[in-house]
Amino acid sequence: MEFSSKLIEQAVGCFSSLPGVGKKTALRYVLHLIKQEDKDVFHFAEILKSLKNDLKFCNNCFTISDHDICDVCSNPSRNKQVVCVVQDYRDVMAIENTGLYKGLYHVLGGLISPMEGIGPSNLTIDHLISKVSTQEVSEVILALNATMEGETTSFFIFKKLAPFNLTLSAIARGIAVGDELEYTDEVTLGRSIINRIPYNNSLLR
Amino acid sequence: MEFSSKLIEQAVGCFSSLPGVGKKTALRYVLHLIKQEDKDVFHFAEILKSLKNDLKFCNNCFTISDHDICDVCSNPSRNKQVVCVVQDYRDVMAIENTGLYKGLYHVLGGLISPMEGIGPSNLTIDHLISKVSTQEVSEVILALNATMEGETTSFFIFKKLAPFNLTLSAIARGIAVGDELEYTDEVTLGRSIINRIPYNNSLLR
Repeated sequence: MEFSSKLIEQAVGCFSSLPGVGKKTALRYVLHLIKQEDKDVFHFAEILKSLKNDLKFCNNCFTISDHDICDVCSNPSRNKQVVCVVQDYRDVMAIENTGLYKGLYHVLGGLISPMEGIGPSNLTIDHLISKVSTQEVSEVILALNATMEGETTSFFIFKKLAPFNLTLSAIARGIAVGDELEYTDEVTLGRSIINRIPYNNSLLR
Repeated sequence: MEFSSKLIEQAVGCFSSLPGVGKKTALRYVLHLIKQEDKDVFHFAEILKSLKNDLKFCNNCFTISDHDICDVCSNPSRNKQVVCVVQDYRDVMAIENTGLYKGLYHVLGGLISPMEGIGPSNLTIDHLISKVSTQEVSEVILALNATMEGETTSFFIFKKLAPFNLTLSAIARGIAVGDELEYTDEVTLGRSIINRIPYNNSLLR
């Protein structure tokens, strides 16, 4: 793609660095912004800078928060003995939206991925271990993606936490609510039979 | 969607104002940017500001250009008597990519759309008329989208330019190269029969 303007080329370069954005989509964004009012675009630019300058993370669980301790960690009605380990902020939002979890979180900030050069030291795994050894934690729930990277990270954390006296669990893998057996992949279906659960009322709500 | 951070909420608001971007995608962009290096994000913010502060348009054809007169308008080998009217910069790029057009352009900056509050006065139609009346223009080609807005704008310009002594043409509507008749919609197929063209060598390249 050749551009008649250096500035447009740079702007397209910036936007196409975003995940899933190609040059055509980036150009669409840029031409849209050109038509917007000055103040809106300047506001956009300021917010981008703020993302790097002003963003704060919870000192306890590392989720994004406006305060030193996030709303979940500072909520006295949450069960502080249960810690749910997630990849990032989006997963905290997703689990909070279910309204069914009352414990705390621990945000890793990514998953172990040798392909992308992310090792255990790039994540907050050390903080998780020191949290488990210093605070009263009775259960750690691993809620990571069902991908290669997620499974690897889960296994790494499992090995690290095994010496401690606590319950380690992982969120259930199985057939999604509303799905049909016929169209479920073999691995998921196989695992859902092996990891079958007692039939009771909690399945019906 | 509820966010635990005001800043994240504002950033998601900015990105979801882009065309075709919802809140989930916007959050994905924001979380991606948080992980990038400071200098890259600050560069992104500066480029956004520059889009409003430093972007220049060609004084003759209103396309985006680094110079007062764009590369096409200042190219002595282009035919200055032929002007192709397009909606925006992307269309100039698309036609330039064909390599088959040797005239100049005139960028309208949009299409007439009462729904979006865009009237003829918001576009560069007046400049087109003064260009036609003051410069030596022998042909105006209307190359606008085959949509309601595009057809309306074409008709409006056709009415305005009718008093002048010049050839007015529109790009051909018809079956795309590689398409099958069976799957072409009736309106396009009907028009392609009515507007049939002499069969000659130019169709074969």
